[in-house]
Amino acid sequence: MRDIARRDDIHDLILDGVDVLLARYGFKKMTMEDLARQVGIGKGTIYLHFRSKEELTLSHIDRIAERLLDRLEALAGSAAPPDDRVRKMLAERVLYRFDSVTHYSQSLNDLLSSVRKNLLARRQVHFEKEAAVLERVLRDGVRRGVLACPDPASAAHVLVWSTNSLLPFSLTTRELGKRKEMEERVSRIADVLLRGLIRRSARPSTRTQKPECD
Amino acid sequence: MRDIARRDDIHDLILDGVDVLLARYGFKKMTMEDLARQVGIGKGTIYLHFRSKEELTLSHIDRIAERLLDRLEALAGSAAPPDDRVRKMLAERVLYRFDSVTHYSQSLNDLLSSVRKNLLARRQVHFEKEAAVLERVLRDGVRRGVLACPDPASAAHVLVWSTNSLLPFSLTTRELGKRKEMEERVSRIADVLLRGLIRRSARPSTRTQKPECD
Repeated sequence: MRDIARRDDIHDLILDGVDVLLARYGFKKMTMEDLARQVGIGKGTIYLHFRSKEELTLSHIDRIAERLLDRLEALAGSAAPPDDRVRKMLAERVLYRFDSVTHYSQSLNDLLSSVRKNLLARRQVHFEKEAAVLERVLRDGVRRGVLACPDPASAAHVLVWSTNSLLPFSLTTRELGKRKEMEERVSRIADVLLRGLIRRSARPSTRTQKPECD
Repeated sequence: MRDIARRDDIHDLILDGVDVLLARYGFKKMTMEDLARQVGIGKGTIYLHFRSKEELTLSHIDRIAERLLDRLEALAGSAAPPDDRVRKMLAERVLYRFDSVTHYSQSLNDLLSSVRKNLLARRQVHFEKEAAVLERVLRDGVRRGVLACPDPASAAHVLVWSTNSLLPFSLTTRELGKRKEMEERVSRIADVLLRGLIRRSARPSTRTQKPECD
């Protein structure tokens, strides 16, 4: 037990170091030597945990996705109405990722170009997990008579796909500097999607929803 | 007039050559020499039109976007009900791009990694044009009392953002082999979005829409 706990600690410390160095040097210029010095361990120790710089970077992104998932779980379990919860979760999946990379947004292009192929595969795993949490809230909304969706699993994927283009992977450096704009975009997407998912006879619980002209 | 027409012809012939060579060699292995031989012109002639391999590739992608825009204009001007037109346009913007790169989907990752930064900027221009065509159809839908959206320009952008994650830029090689799956995904997204945009008292004109459970 003791050993495993310590392994996890070092694992996490190394990824904290990656985060600092991505901001300081960027992906291309960051070396394993820099990282070892930053964390205060030997280079060999890093290789015990991560096979390569790419593996290190992908694990760093995985950690962002895992932390996001914890936050989504917390939002999903809150007492707010189901449509409010969905709205907050969609904003969170966009903005938490945004905030996690904003301190190295200038060099993010290098990173994403370099690990693109394997990152695309990892993203699928992250997205499936996020869809599963959203699905639970949708099911709850149907049970309470607030949401109308015959296939909550399908609708959860629609929510994920519809907001995926706002994740850092698809943003220009300029867009990565505009948090307000991204917040506005995800809110506008959520408006239309939720209007499509809310039971026609139910009154939407959100106050932020724009008035319709009918 | 004659000279301009011939310049355009050569421009187009060169891009046709790029398309063939991307399928044969992929982006990384394709050289300007290969391209000159393929088109049957001198290497110097290519440089008269395109400054670099990156510029050539971005122009190739621009051409796909321009051809798509023509098709979107045609769909927008059809006699079909506005919501049907929107649905077909969303499918077209996903599937036309899909079909345009499917013969070199194996090497697409190299290409997209290499030109990522400048491509992201170009994409914004493409997306704005597509949103403008969609906006016209939405306005038409509001005028006819079929659609309810207080801000058609905003809603048009929502339609674009919500389907952007299905474009080749964000797909894995595996997904680029699954046309049916992508068709299904864009259709499911369109279902929810259009349910959110259709005027509550109006009867949707689409027959493909899934029954709601309320």
